[in-house]
Amino acid sequence: MNVKDHRVVRIEEALKVFYQSINLNRLDVETLPLRDALGRVTASDVAAPIDIPQFNLSAVDGYAVLASDTFGASPANPAIFRIKELRDGFDSSLKSGEAAYVSTGSPIPVGSDAVVMLEYTRKIEQDIIEVYKAVSPGEDVSWRGEDVRKGEIALREGVRLKPQDLGMLASMGFTSVNVYRRPIVGIISTGSELVSLGSERTFGRVIDVNSIILSAMTIDYGGEPLPLGIVEDDFEKLRSTIRIGLAKSDVLVLTGGTSVGKADLTVEAIDSLGQPGIVVHGVAMRPGRPTALASIEGKPVMNLSGYPVAAMIGFYVFGKDLISRMLRTVDEPEPHVSAKVTRRILSPPGIRSYVRVNVSRRGLDLIAEPVRSTGSGIISSMVRMNGLLVIPEDVEGVDEGEVVEVVLMRPIRNLS
Amino acid sequence: MNVKDHRVVRIEEALKVFYQSINLNRLDVETLPLRDALGRVTASDVAAPIDIPQFNLSAVDGYAVLASDTFGASPANPAIFRIKELRDGFDSSLKSGEAAYVSTGSPIPVGSDAVVMLEYTRKIEQDIIEVYKAVSPGEDVSWRGEDVRKGEIALREGVRLKPQDLGMLASMGFTSVNVYRRPIVGIISTGSELVSLGSERTFGRVIDVNSIILSAMTIDYGGEPLPLGIVEDDFEKLRSTIRIGLAKSDVLVLTGGTSVGKADLTVEAIDSLGQPGIVVHGVAMRPGRPTALASIEGKPVMNLSGYPVAAMIGFYVFGKDLISRMLRTVDEPEPHVSAKVTRRILSPPGIRSYVRVNVSRRGLDLIAEPVRSTGSGIISSMVRMNGLLVIPEDVEGVDEGEVVEVVLMRPIRNLS
Repeated sequence: MNVKDHRVVRIEEALKVFYQSINLNRLDVETLPLRDALGRVTASDVAAPIDIPQFNLSAVDGYAVLASDTFGASPANPAIFRIKELRDGFDSSLKSGEAAYVSTGSPIPVGSDAVVMLEYTRKIEQDIIEVYKAVSPGEDVSWRGEDVRKGEIALREGVRLKPQDLGMLASMGFTSVNVYRRPIVGIISTGSELVSLGSERTFGRVIDVNSIILSAMTIDYGGEPLPLGIVEDDFEKLRSTIRIGLAKSDVLVLTGGTSVGKADLTVEAIDSLGQPGIVVHGVAMRPGRPTALASIEGKPVMNLSGYPVAAMIGFYVFGKDLISRMLRTVDEPEPHVSAKVTRRILSPPGIRSYVRVNVSRRGLDLIAEPVRSTGSGIISSMVRMNGLLVIPEDVEGVDEGEVVEVVLMRPIRNLS
Repeated sequence: MNVKDHRVVRIEEALKVFYQSINLNRLDVETLPLRDALGRVTASDVAAPIDIPQFNLSAVDGYAVLASDTFGASPANPAIFRIKELRDGFDSSLKSGEAAYVSTGSPIPVGSDAVVMLEYTRKIEQDIIEVYKAVSPGEDVSWRGEDVRKGEIALREGVRLKPQDLGMLASMGFTSVNVYRRPIVGIISTGSELVSLGSERTFGRVIDVNSIILSAMTIDYGGEPLPLGIVEDDFEKLRSTIRIGLAKSDVLVLTGGTSVGKADLTVEAIDSLGQPGIVVHGVAMRPGRPTALASIEGKPVMNLSGYPVAAMIGFYVFGKDLISRMLRTVDEPEPHVSAKVTRRILSPPGIRSYVRVNVSRRGLDLIAEPVRSTGSGIISSMVRMNGLLVIPEDVEGVDEGEVVEVVLMRPIRNLS
């Protein structure tokens, strides 16, 4: 396939073609202690091995009783109970006429079916209480199994574990959970001008920031970054590093070498390594137009722009969703705000534009100001912005004063 | 101080009183390699030690030239240049009449001030090119310092580091960054009925899930959890564990023992350990009414409900913001959606209610359905819900069909 044949396609079509070309093999499963599983994705449905709660529990501090013993009780006509001391940790039982002190969250004895709150009782002797109020059966009791019944699915496959999910698993007696291993995202930076972080400064050498940015994004999205270093603009060197990357990773991401000029080396090197090769080269988005997507014998490969901002937005558009799909889950929800645009922004028809904006408060309104430096090499624009305004393909831009939806990437700082 | 004296206060007042009573000491600073700093908070402003970019860079693949040499060039009247080979990594310079091949992102030689894109050139001899288009000075050049000028503050103190911030730091040549150490959140569960995760199952024993949930929430909020175990309902044992917790942590969180019944032991134990002691006991919120807040010689202590759901919401309301303040940063933005409530929800006047809802799509609308089991012991309600509807103090509830703002805690799954 001649990689030059590709035409620029819309994001939607790019995603469709890409997903049709790749195989998303089910990832291996690993078993993690609950304390290490936050944010990981469940690899199977989890059924409750016991009822939750496991016992009938008191919802208050008070006395467990048989509700019918209290019927008709009032301050004028208290019901009288003999206090039964519960033997700690044993399956105590209660008979009619007996009451047992229970604290909030602790089990009520077998035979009792309600709890009288402490304030409606009075101890009149060492082992005798008066109860001043009738309670109905079930009052202030959490019944066994009312949270989750034994055998019920308490947690589904494909769930990103939140604190409460870990609590749910713990309450069922689990100390560990099966999760998918993180997909390994191999990251290769291409460009003869690049040097790695920490190299000595020499004229003309530019520090490779893309591998650092994409590694961190990979972690945010739930993958495991595998930085594979820098490759100069040399076809054979590119081929051999890509081959290593394909063997070691579940997804391979390359930056640089995607322009339409002399050195389309990276795209050609990817394409040469297997079928179907490059399936998308050129996406109708800004920034990120030279993005190329490939499948090498079913393994997903992306070639993003070498410009940090374009690489970031490319990975946001194509990498985030891919990692979620590999984990058989969905993306986390993103914060959005409505804000008024401070100046007109043009977007060519047919192109989806990702405009970096800074959202701030002006009085009661939120305003979105496009960041001044729009060059896609300008990392500071991504540091200074807190929002991304997405202008769809069928919109040619937004007018000054128009209210738009902005994806909020970091907090709105200036609350003044 | 008699801890019973406290009246139920609104959340806003509780926060005010609490923050007035505590000292938020500046946390220690630690230096981390960039790869370990994602999500951490910068401990100082970072000024650029060099211009970014450090050199004038080409924005395209093409030939660096002196723009004035191209003036008047056209396909009919090309300008002619002698190709100068750049010596890799050296401070090459260019004279009038010379052109040097540069690839995207690489430096242009001293003496050049524009780049002609490859497609407007043709090599006519081994070292001679024709240029068919005039370029203006600065065309397709990223000027030295146009991203960030040397000495300019590139990153502020109190920023939660995102991937792009790490890229910015890397581009300035930094390999590490100063961040605040994570505040240590000591976590104590109280209750004689509790056993720790992994204990053998015995009648009447309930697994302590709060320490697992609060540990995970602490990590999400940027703190470091320090689980300090379970303490039975015994005043002296509580006191000694709290004393240890105060010494080891920056914030101490206890769950359980906050009801107004017999055993207000935890609140009393906290209050006995220093001044001013308990400053809030009872908050006008649902769930979470028995929440107590304290300052022991300036150190923040919170006593949350023993009910997992109430503990979670209490920590969401009081813990999240506290951790952000300790880190001298602000909370991350939260995703919100507008959704139509499926049934009437009442909220007592003067109380802020946190209603667990499940948001799903119905046709083009989003609907928010309150989760059925509303008991605050019902962890499954937190697992099944994906949203939190906050009903403010001055609203008595929402009507069926009313459109409300919901905090989206996890994805909307059913897109059908």
